[in-house]
Parts: sequence; structure tokens; C-alpha cells
Amino acid sequence: MISKSQISFIKSLHQKKIRKEQGLFIVEGLKSIQEFINSDYVVDSVYYTENLMPKLGNLSRNIKSVEISEVELSKISTLSTPQAILAVVRIPQQTDFNSIIHTRSFLIALDGIQDPGNLGTIIRTADWFGLYTVLCSKDTADAYNPKVVQASMGSLSRVNVIYTELGDFLDQTNLPVYGALLDGNSIYKTDFGQEGIILLGNEGNGISDELQSKINYPVTIPRYGKAESLNVAISAAIFCSELRRKS
Amino acid sequence: MISKSQISFIKSLHQKKIRKEQGLFIVEGLKSIQEFINSDYVVDSVYYTENLMPKLGNLSRNIKSVEISEVELSKISTLSTPQAILAVVRIPQQTDFNSIIHTRSFLIALDGIQDPGNLGTIIRTADWFGLYTVLCSKDTADAYNPKVVQASMGSLSRVNVIYTELGDFLDQTNLPVYGALLDGNSIYKTDFGQEGIILLGNEGNGISDELQSKINYPVTIPRYGKAESLNVAISAAIFCSELRRKS
Repeated sequence: MISKSQISFIKSLHQKKIRKEQGLFIVEGLKSIQEFINSDYVVDSVYYTENLMPKLGNLSRNIKSVEISEVELSKISTLSTPQAILAVVRIPQQTDFNSIIHTRSFLIALDGIQDPGNLGTIIRTADWFGLYTVLCSKDTADAYNPKVVQASMGSLSRVNVIYTELGDFLDQTNLPVYGALLDGNSIYKTDFGQEGIILLGNEGNGISDELQSKINYPVTIPRYGKAESLNVAISAAIFCSELRRKS
Repeated sequence: MISKSQISFIKSLHQKKIRKEQGLFIVEGLKSIQEFINSDYVVDSVYYTENLMPKLGNLSRNIKSVEISEVELSKISTLSTPQAILAVVRIPQQTDFNSIIHTRSFLIALDGIQDPGNLGTIIRTADWFGLYTVLCSKDTADAYNPKVVQASMGSLSRVNVIYTELGDFLDQTNLPVYGALLDGNSIYKTDFGQEGIILLGNEGNGISDELQSKINYPVTIPRYGKAESLNVAISAAIFCSELRRKS
């Protein structure tokens, strides 16, 4: 049972503005919710339908859990086919980039990625390849958008997503900057070493001129066919795979 | 100007059943439409808004072109933000797999891919890496679904998508079958040679037991982090990249 005002409160979290105001976002599906519970995130409350009850054993006792009807779930869910459980989770404090400026590993930097599915898939892929920091320009899609959370498949609970002025960060870091461009050197002939920043640009316009000037190594995924470009999450994955196969 | 009955006819093509009955599907956006015009596909008709007119110069004179209002376009479009032009295109005759059974190159085979965005991205990626045949099990998403067409970014005009009994095909082909599994040999140590089939499975359940038994080389993308799996379009891309870098 859930009140009308709770329903409209949770529904309001579908909007970025309200998520930011309230510092809360929505996670759906038991597996993803368990990953957030087992992470540094604070899960505020959980709403589940009756048929999920037998599977709830692993949920923390400290979390407010409310049984609701399927009709109620369909009202608060962001999915066309809700997954029997929905959690409201706190958005963590933004990390300042100074806390990672001396990192000696691989980071991903995203310049203006617009599609939430792409951002979520990049976070999931980063998690598979063991890259735990994704830096985003301020005009990149919101990581707490339900579509990003969904596409990340729980990986958002482990990957640190930092929104910042990418230009300032690239000016201050000592890490080499590898930029995904259409006219760089072949990725298959690139030595990534043991650390660096993989910089990827907007779906339509690529990397902005300002940030292109900060690239140390322009890198291209060679084309063997006729498509004009690759999806940005696909490019990110091929970069991750290449830098791991060589390291 | 477009009649009410034309509007409802084009809208009906948003549904798979009607697309199949009528043998027609929708393509949106000038760039994609031009790629279909320049391909073996037959473009039946084109609907555009006034502000697109200056760019229409390259369109074939043989295609019925109708100027419509933005309101009319929003009624027939499958997009939340329509792209000023929409085409109705003929679905080509299905190729029988016998026509490609003696192919000596790389093919992609998809077992039950459900998400249209994944299928479209796989088609786009195949086109980038010069793989021009995608075989699909009959329960794979419809390649003429507007979301597939959109995600393929015009590449559907160049990649031959064949729906077939994958088991029969794998029984009859002489090509080696490389299956994307979680417990195979490292893709980084796999020699793909010059030809073969890359077999990828359903988003949730992977490759079916029946098809797993037909795999010659089980192959895995090594995991360096904690995500449980990779998105199937991401896996497809890493396979394409690896087989090209080695060939």
C-alpha cells in the first residue's frame, strides 16, 4: 500500500530537475537493486509486488520496504514492463576531479554524450573492463536518468561518474589523452601503456574543437566497410578492449 | 498535403504485422533515405516538410514525393522528434540461406536478439567492419522495426539480413562457428582465419542449447572488472574488431 502523494513523489523522480532537487533517483529490477545495496550507495526505500516476496530474503533490514500492487507499481515505474521491484536511491555527493587528478590508471572522458542508452552501456562496459571512473562534460546525459540506470545493468553502483569541466581536467592531468577521431592513427597500432584518458565525443558532432586541441594521441578504429561512423558506446568498447589486450 | 487514409496507412506500418502484410517499412531522416535510394531497395514514396525542400535536389525523380505539414509529419513519424522527411520503402524478398551457404567470408548469426536498438547497432557495426550478412533466428527482432532502422543509421540498406532456422544453416555450412560464450577461450588468443560465423545469443539467456552444440570455437571476451555481462551489440563489435585486426 502506497499513498497517492508517495506515488506522485516517486513519479516526479522521472524528471531530472526533481532528481537534482531531492537528491534521489530510481533503480528497477531485483538484481540491480541488490548491487546498489551492496555498494556505497544509500538505498532509501524499496517497493515490491507480492510475487517478488520470496526473493526478498537478501535485502537489507535497514531499508524501508513497502509491498504494493501491480497497478501501483505501474504508476511509479519508468518501464513499460515493470520488473516487480523499484528502489529509491540517494544520489551521492559529486566527487571533485581533484580527488582523481593523480590517478594512475585508465579513465573514460565523455564530451557531450546525449543518448542515455549510450551512457548506460558505456558505464556497463567500463565496469566489465575494470575502468572505474567516467568523467562527463556538463552537457552529457544525466547518469541518474532511468534509461541510463537501466542500460548500466547495475554497473552504475560501481563506476564513479563525475560531471566536470573536461577542459580544465585535461589541462591539469598528467595522463596521456587518447582521442577517438576519424582521422587518427590505427587503434591496432597504438600502444596505450598502463594509464591514460580515453576521450570520446558527441554522437553527431564528435569531440569539440576546444577538447580536440588537448588530445595527445588521435586514434581511429579502422573502417573496412561503408558505414559513416560507429555508435559511441561501440567505439568506447573497442577502446577498452584494445587497451586491456595490450596491458 | 496528405489524406487521412494515407496518414492511417503509414501509421499502420509502425506495426510488424502490417509491415509484413504490405511488404513496406518506414525510413526517417534525409541521410538514411538517400542511402536506401542509392541501394538495391525500392523507395516507394517520400513525405517531407517545407523547410527540407532545398535539400531534396538529390532525390530520385522516380519517387513519389509529397510535401506535408509538420503536424502531418508528426502523425506518421515513429520518432518523438521527427526529422523533416519520412520514406516508405519496400521490404525486399527474403534471401534463402542456400544463396549464401558457400560464402567464404565472415557472417554474423544472431540467436534471439530481442532489443531493436541492439539489432540496429549490430547492423551498423557489421557495415563498418565490412560484414554484409547477418543471419537471424526467427525469434530475433524484426529488422524493419523503425527502431532497428533508426539505430542502423542507413546501414540496413547495405547489410543483408536473413531470417532462417539457424540450426539448419549451421548444420549445412562448412564455415567454422565461433560462439560468444562466458566460458570459452580468450578472444585475444583466438585465430579467426579468413572466414567464419560469429554466433551471438539472446540478451538474457545467451545462445540456446541446440545452437551451442554446433559451436566449433567457444570464445570469451575476458573480464577485468565486475559487470556480469556485456551488452550483445558491444560483444558483436569486439568480435568484429578482433577478426579484422587479425585478418
